[in-house]
Amino acid sequence: MKQAAVIGGTGYGALELIRILERHPYIQISALISRSEEGEPVADRYPHLTTLVDEKFTGLNSGLLEKADIVFFATPAGVAKELLPRIQKPGVQYIDLSGDLRIDSPDEYEQWYGGEAPSEVLQKEAVYGMPEINSEKIKQAEIISNPGCFATAALLGIIPAVVSGKASQKDIIIDGKTGVSGAGRKMSMMTHFSETNENIKAYKVGSHQHTPEIEQYLAQETAADHPVSFQTHLIPMTRGIMCTCYLSLNDPSGLHETYQKFYEDHPFVRIRPEGAVPQTKEVYGSNYCDIGISVDKRTGRLLVVSVIDNLVKGASGQAVQNMNLMNGWKESEGLTEIPLYP
Amino acid sequence: MKQAAVIGGTGYGALELIRILERHPYIQISALISRSEEGEPVADRYPHLTTLVDEKFTGLNSGLLEKADIVFFATPAGVAKELLPRIQKPGVQYIDLSGDLRIDSPDEYEQWYGGEAPSEVLQKEAVYGMPEINSEKIKQAEIISNPGCFATAALLGIIPAVVSGKASQKDIIIDGKTGVSGAGRKMSMMTHFSETNENIKAYKVGSHQHTPEIEQYLAQETAADHPVSFQTHLIPMTRGIMCTCYLSLNDPSGLHETYQKFYEDHPFVRIRPEGAVPQTKEVYGSNYCDIGISVDKRTGRLLVVSVIDNLVKGASGQAVQNMNLMNGWKESEGLTEIPLYP
Amino acid sequence: MKQAAVIGGTGYGALELIRILERHPYIQISALISRSEEGEPVADRYPHLTTLVDEKFTGLNSGLLEKADIVFFATPAGVAKELLPRIQKPGVQYIDLSGDLRIDSPDEYEQWYGGEAPSEVLQKEAVYGMPEINSEKIKQAEIISNPGCFATAALLGIIPAVVSGKASQKDIIIDGKTGVSGAGRKMSMMTHFSETNENIKAYKVGSHQHTPEIEQYLAQETAADHPVSFQTHLIPMTRGIMCTCYLSLNDPSGLHETYQKFYEDHPFVRIRPEGAVPQTKEVYGSNYCDIGISVDKRTGRLLVVSVIDNLVKGASGQAVQNMNLMNGWKESEGLTEIPLYP
Amino acid sequence: MKQAAVIGGTGYGALELIRILERHPYIQISALISRSEEGEPVADRYPHLTTLVDEKFTGLNSGLLEKADIVFFATPAGVAKELLPRIQKPGVQYIDLSGDLRIDSPDEYEQWYGGEAPSEVLQKEAVYGMPEINSEKIKQAEIISNPGCFATAALLGIIPAVVSGKASQKDIIIDGKTGVSGAGRKMSMMTHFSETNENIKAYKVGSHQHTPEIEQYLAQETAADHPVSFQTHLIPMTRGIMCTCYLSLNDPSGLHETYQKFYEDHPFVRIRPEGAVPQTKEVYGSNYCDIGISVDKRTGRLLVVSVIDNLVKGASGQAVQNMNLMNGWKESEGLTEIPLYP
Repeated sequence: MKQAAVIGGTGYGALELIRILERHPYIQISALISRSEEGEPVADRYPHLTTLVDEKFTGLNSGLLEKADIVFFATPAGVAKELLPRIQKPGVQYIDLSGDLRIDSPDEYEQWYGGEAPSEVLQKEAVYGMPEINSEKIKQAEIISNPGCFATAALLGIIPAVVSGKASQKDIIIDGKTGVSGAGRKMSMMTHFSETNENIKAYKVGSHQHTPEIEQYLAQETAADHPVSFQTHLIPMTRGIMCTCYLSLNDPSGLHETYQKFYEDHPFVRIRPEGAVPQTKEVYGSNYCDIGISVDKRTGRLLVVSVIDNLVKGASGQAVQNMNLMNGWKESEGLTEIPLYP
Repeated sequence: MKQAAVIGGTGYGALELIRILERHPYIQISALISRSEEGEPVADRYPHLTTLVDEKFTGLNSGLLEKADIVFFATPAGVAKELLPRIQKPGVQYIDLSGDLRIDSPDEYEQWYGGEAPSEVLQKEAVYGMPEINSEKIKQAEIISNPGCFATAALLGIIPAVVSGKASQKDIIIDGKTGVSGAGRKMSMMTHFSETNENIKAYKVGSHQHTPEIEQYLAQETAADHPVSFQTHLIPMTRGIMCTCYLSLNDPSGLHETYQKFYEDHPFVRIRPEGAVPQTKEVYGSNYCDIGISVDKRTGRLLVVSVIDNLVKGASGQAVQNMNLMNGWKESEGLTEIPLYP
Repeated sequence: MKQAAVIGGTGYGALELIRILERHPYIQISALISRSEEGEPVADRYPHLTTLVDEKFTGLNSGLLEKADIVFFATPAGVAKELLPRIQKPGVQYIDLSGDLRIDSPDEYEQWYGGEAPSEVLQKEAVYGMPEINSEKIKQAEIISNPGCFATAALLGIIPAVVSGKASQKDIIIDGKTGVSGAGRKMSMMTHFSETNENIKAYKVGSHQHTPEIEQYLAQETAADHPVSFQTHLIPMTRGIMCTCYLSLNDPSGLHETYQKFYEDHPFVRIRPEGAVPQTKEVYGSNYCDIGISVDKRTGRLLVVSVIDNLVKGASGQAVQNMNLMNGWKESEGLTEIPLYP
Repeated sequence: MKQAAVIGGTGYGALELIRILERHPYIQISALISRSEEGEPVADRYPHLTTLVDEKFTGLNSGLLEKADIVFFATPAGVAKELLPRIQKPGVQYIDLSGDLRIDSPDEYEQWYGGEAPSEVLQKEAVYGMPEINSEKIKQAEIISNPGCFATAALLGIIPAVVSGKASQKDIIIDGKTGVSGAGRKMSMMTHFSETNENIKAYKVGSHQHTPEIEQYLAQETAADHPVSFQTHLIPMTRGIMCTCYLSLNDPSGLHETYQKFYEDHPFVRIRPEGAVPQTKEVYGSNYCDIGISVDKRTGRLLVVSVIDNLVKGASGQAVQNMNLMNGWKESEGLTEIPLYP
């Protein structure tokens, strides 16, 4: 039994970590850390946890953080890069769900995220936590930079086609669609019900911070570097991300086998029969990434549709998957829930 | 390990049984029986079950039904009362999720359900499967009549106040609100998205078939018999039921303690602090029934708000809870999922 | 052509006034007044008004307010009672969409609204703007207190039965359900999409400020005074209110005719055939209040279901209806839009 | 005053025609024709039309069709191509809202629509009713083929960039997103609430029948012919279409002016400031098509986002716009409603 601390207790990422970790056989939650809620019983703030979570939120200096073997940062952008170096201890594992440590280039970080880039030492120590492409490094890591939700869906959808050379790395277009929970629990006009219900909104036009993340890790897999077009849309639903990816085909043969083989050892990626595409509801509340591919002979393009639950495979579920690998546990430990349908 | 068969494989009740039973430590699903889908792999019809369920739907006469220790009827009204007597075998447990066996009086059955009442023998043998009021009988039962979704929320909300005499059994008004999944997977104008989205609809005015169920089991608990006003409303969401119950108060003292005590041995009922009321989202995807009570001194009334997930505590989760009691297993076995929030 | 000013330009009430007044044949909007947006072109803030509204928001002291023949207050609680006396001029008409002037008793005001009651002079001068019960006074009024959204649906639904003596004024229970736009454009957890979608929430338990409004105007019509039970619920949709009203029947005969006759001269109330009930979608975007009644012989109760669009008949449409009456125009002028369905 | 007949009275296209035509100053509806509802009062089937529409649905042979000056086909695919030639009379105007007459090539028709192509004579006589590119022909037409909803949004979004040569006609990718009302009032799993709510679904993969329509009319404007990638997605909302279009830029200069100029005489197309993009809610219930453009220098692509209400500009509103042009009336007659927001 290991002790886990969750920093950032009042957001949806933290809530989802609590939901998963509370049922994980090898984990005990030792601290739920939230500055703004310090001292408040968790179940008072979140009544759905009544009878399930007895803890109170604590502050950073309660002493509880020190007992943790594993520390999750479910914090807004900019917190982990400052806080992690101050609390880092040998032998403790750190998993950052924010984007602080995902971008190699300080210039790119500053361009897309704003603010100062994290220290180079810290950024280099962090391993990108996408188990399907990086599992060996993850197993050795002490700091994990957990992928972005859109980047997860996009990269898992595109990589097999591009790495195999079946499709071109140039001219990739990714049309992303997300439910509103991705915008977090913070209030804004983006998350205002009357503004978002019965509406589709394209947002962060040409400027979504997952763009350089997608490009960087695609480049890492192929050793080539090309910009991608990535546009995000807000959809009137709570959970779910779909990336619809349009690629130029080089070779349409054997595509389905290529995808099947690429993910054969990865329990959380499921490939639909060729021509069939997944819906976001088919992974609701689960850690799956479902992928469908379809060749369009008229245009010579490959269509890839990938879906995840943005809060599970797109955030907290993937974080737990990383934790499992780091600790030598079964990759799917604590993540075996069947999607909630309908 | 016991073998379970589910009859009625293509509805939401069956889907939810599959979701729960697949993760139940003492159950193996031996047959998913659906006449209309016989021979089709379950995951072809329901891609969210890809890699999770390998079985095909089978017909009634495949021989697989015979291997079952426990048979669930997740069938439309009228099927179980005909089919159960024809397949009944000693030592096998039967749990009917439909309303066929819930109403004692044949006249009432015919008035509210239409069609012929079930045989008296069958109806008498069936035990009403609401563990919070009937657990001893359930433990001995061979046939369970699983409660209706609205009846579950309403009865759990009302019974402690009425049985204790704190509120009157007369003049009870229950305003019910349900998500659309309660109407099942069958197509109708009730389940048509464009007709139901951005809309509230009162339906089955004065004629909902859970009305006599609520009255009958309330009468059973108190030995008095009074009609209740019960009106149902369709809400543009998928899962969730709320019953807002208005009762005439006899004695406002100690109400919260009365509720707490009534449910102290029942892990799936959670009472909010007095004056606080639960939301349907707080039980989403879980087997909980959350209840809030509030005294209105101006009117001398007690307000009770109870919420469930209609597909879990209102159907398949409660069926598994009954199965657990019938087999001497822990009541919450296989039902420990934390509500999915948000 | 008369000049109208709208104070409170950035809320939904103001937006809906703009939508209606821009198409009103006898009205020109002379000023859209919003302190926080002063100087900003209206269409920059609300792009749906591009090419339709050229004005900028102005401040209170721009001089434009002085040109207005009619001034609408689409302001938060507490603004009109302070501001109106300071700007009041003879011959100008004032219509307050907030609750400031609805409650006769200062004590009741302070209990339900908090804060200091408006001056007695001002409150007495204000006429309650529900044309279906108060049209003669409205025609003479200089200040209108526009009814609350829930109070509109509830009173229009209940009054004919109670005034006629067909149902008792005692023991009235009103279960109210509203879309989220009623909570306005202000950000809060109530209006947060992820918290409200796929959810039903009972709110303001026993404390909704429309309760005394319903009681007061019911008492005014009948000369008797009884408390009502009124509980509100938040529904995951943008527009629409339904009040489900439960009344004790005295005399079930001729109810439908009673309702038909009561509203025969009122173009915006439509009565369904007895036993049929309206849906909120059937009045979407329109000024109608649709009402259905049904007698439940088992319980001796009358069920009344009334629906409105909370932003039209529940706010801005009714305000324009009042303006029409005050100016001797046709009651439905500018309000003839057919409900948007689906 | 001209007489209009609407064939296909029970679908959403017909409902929206009724809503608009009932308020049109020069139109009287002479017949609402629906085989399945013959003899039923319209308001019995659609209670939102209570007190607004007194007519009954009639059959084709009631004699009422003969009185019409203008006949709208709001019928499923395949009806107009058979029925129109049988009822055609000189001097009568016909507007077909279905796709029957949109495709020039019989082979393409049969490939994308299935079934037999319409007669060549009929197809040639029909004028494509997109006023922004075809107004002169529309003014002379006797038969209008009203554009598809997606084709309307896509073509209006793309044409100015392609015709001006600012962007390439090759490599166009259109990612379409639609609310559920586009699938009509017919029941299907696509329109089932529980299957569609909290879900995004890509559908008709590589096979949407608006694809050849987009290609054909793009080719007509440019005299070049290239396939487009067009993929559609179902979004959990009732009304609204967004097309997100990705184009290869030839020349980024003066793009905004190009769009502004292209549509300067067309009242229903509104161009956002460069870099800003419209939301579907900003045209809700109105005949507007709002367009936003943004240059992505990193990728050399032009992003175009266009939105319409699929039932108005995407169907019945555009049909009325065509009728106005055919009859020499003001183009916006009867179509001046301001979008319903929120």
